[in-house]
Amino acid sequence: MEAQEYMEMALALAARGIGWTSPNPAVGAVVVNNGRVVGRGWHKACGGPHAEVFAIDEAGDRAEGGDIYVTLEPCNHTGKTPPCTEKILNAGIRRVFIAMEDPNPVASGGIARLRSQGVEVTCGILREKALAINEGFIKHVQTGLPFVIAKSAATLDGRTAASTGHSQWITGEKSRRHVHELRHAVDAILVGIGTVKADNPSLTCRLESGGKDPVRIVLDSHLTIDEQAKVLQLKSDSDTIIVCGKIPPEKSETARKKARLTAAGARVLEVPLKDNHVDLDRLMAILGEEKIQSILLEGGATLLKSALDAKIVDKFRIYIAPKLLTGDDGFPVTAGRGPLSMDEALTLSRVAVRHFDNDVMIEGYL
Amino acid sequence: MEAQEYMEMALALAARGIGWTSPNPAVGAVVVNNGRVVGRGWHKACGGPHAEVFAIDEAGDRAEGGDIYVTLEPCNHTGKTPPCTEKILNAGIRRVFIAMEDPNPVASGGIARLRSQGVEVTCGILREKALAINEGFIKHVQTGLPFVIAKSAATLDGRTAASTGHSQWITGEKSRRHVHELRHAVDAILVGIGTVKADNPSLTCRLESGGKDPVRIVLDSHLTIDEQAKVLQLKSDSDTIIVCGKIPPEKSETARKKARLTAAGARVLEVPLKDNHVDLDRLMAILGEEKIQSILLEGGATLLKSALDAKIVDKFRIYIAPKLLTGDDGFPVTAGRGPLSMDEALTLSRVAVRHFDNDVMIEGYL
Repeated sequence: MEAQEYMEMALALAARGIGWTSPNPAVGAVVVNNGRVVGRGWHKACGGPHAEVFAIDEAGDRAEGGDIYVTLEPCNHTGKTPPCTEKILNAGIRRVFIAMEDPNPVASGGIARLRSQGVEVTCGILREKALAINEGFIKHVQTGLPFVIAKSAATLDGRTAASTGHSQWITGEKSRRHVHELRHAVDAILVGIGTVKADNPSLTCRLESGGKDPVRIVLDSHLTIDEQAKVLQLKSDSDTIIVCGKIPPEKSETARKKARLTAAGARVLEVPLKDNHVDLDRLMAILGEEKIQSILLEGGATLLKSALDAKIVDKFRIYIAPKLLTGDDGFPVTAGRGPLSMDEALTLSRVAVRHFDNDVMIEGYL
Repeated sequence: MEAQEYMEMALALAARGIGWTSPNPAVGAVVVNNGRVVGRGWHKACGGPHAEVFAIDEAGDRAEGGDIYVTLEPCNHTGKTPPCTEKILNAGIRRVFIAMEDPNPVASGGIARLRSQGVEVTCGILREKALAINEGFIKHVQTGLPFVIAKSAATLDGRTAASTGHSQWITGEKSRRHVHELRHAVDAILVGIGTVKADNPSLTCRLESGGKDPVRIVLDSHLTIDEQAKVLQLKSDSDTIIVCGKIPPEKSETARKKARLTAAGARVLEVPLKDNHVDLDRLMAILGEEKIQSILLEGGATLLKSALDAKIVDKFRIYIAPKLLTGDDGFPVTAGRGPLSMDEALTLSRVAVRHFDNDVMIEGYL
């Protein structure tokens, strides 16, 4: 087998950790000796052992003189666990193959440390794939801000719902399952109060194979949410955060509502308004400080437009069903005032297309 | 080689005739003897020899005792050319492989005739592909009506133009070239007067490899077209037809305008209006009688909605560019009043997806 194939194996192991490791990255490792895979591991949860530890422990004595393939530069610092560089050196591994360098300055330095001890290090194998697995982690480490994925689903004529708001279901079962995989993968899911009022969604991750609920964040500038809304009534391991404008200090009805919501288990986060809407830049900064590394923005049209205008969206994904709603009174993908020229349209880069039965998923970076 | 491979070859030959043979179908033929291809042919133009004639003439003596692969049942009647069945029998061909039976009752009977003379006939090889090549011909023969392909191009958020009408270009060069191939393939192209006023298109087929201009049909209920419009100023082998409502017999300004347009080379076709718009059912019946077998409907949103509501659209195709115009004030794919529920959306069947650089083409049948 070639180095790339071992790295593919390590990347597949890393992917098993997606959704469970935040704020740590998902990492996979494979130990190879004499052309045989002798150890495999992946980082399973924040605070637990790193991928290298699992792989080297599984290899035992067979790690000596062998190679290790790791999807991220081994850490060189003592955090919740000891440095992986020492684990590799102690195991007597001769060569280390790495997909990408660690973007986290605190944990990096692993490559230099290994080389200083005479270990042969190759970095950059399947780097693009490794980057794609930890987009949230990487952006957050580099900027302090969350990586935002905006998602929509529409008919061929660009409608997300009929004029009545009826939308269930535009896309097929496979597309919807894929969205739940994305919910599992991200730290938080963000919607506007309009979506909560129209659809009363639970915003949980419902995967047969099990999955993690993201933190639910509802933008509700004036705290008008119905206290019986599903997002406030859930049994879920993760929080529901209602984001509203600053509530005046005097004992207002809004302040009392905040107290009731808080008592019922929700968190009410006050963020300054801008043009009568939650200031998205401020919100991203706050969420970033709270180690929310990735956010799935699930609409609706007004929030998507605000987020695009505020340039907080990193990636856009749409599931298109082979249907024509017809008419121009249905719900649009984005709302508000658009530009005057097609030249000003936002063009996605690194476009990827996938198929889910007859639905077509198109995604790309902004 | 297998029968399917020879038939693929015959289908590829047939495809060369697309756009040139109407109102005849595009047909290809391959003569095989002792595992060698000895003759190839395709129907090049209405009135010219059929595919079988070219293939058998190329094979010469080598046709005797051989096989012929034909994409359509050989004709059994004397039209502009003698029956192909006799050509096959005279050549001493032993086996005939056919993709699909002839849907034209006048020309059919070829299979029975060949079998009655002891020729072994197999029909149905790659039938679906053969049907796809001659959709217009087949529908027209069976119903007397044209096959209508509606085409649109939009951003990911379902916009065909910015609020100002600016739309050049949504899609990339490859997508646009593909549209010109479609223009070449169809008998006619149909637009509403709104499109002529907004874009002043020439509606010609512009392919580097050469191509045929379809008949240009403009729906213009009240004959308001600008007499300087490009579609009226073209040098083109095909006609421009302006379709309007019945013009009162008294010498009105509209009647004078009709006379001027006619004198300038256009054809003005009067069709009764229905709800103040050209009655599409009536128009399709008239065009069908005139042997227009296939029509490309190139928008805009109002015409597309009318055509979908009138159920005259057979196939819908959209080119989606990986762009977000943003806002809900741009031009929509379809206009007018939509249904109240997503359940009433029109779902395409036999969906096909193609890629043109980063654009995604989705098409299917209604």
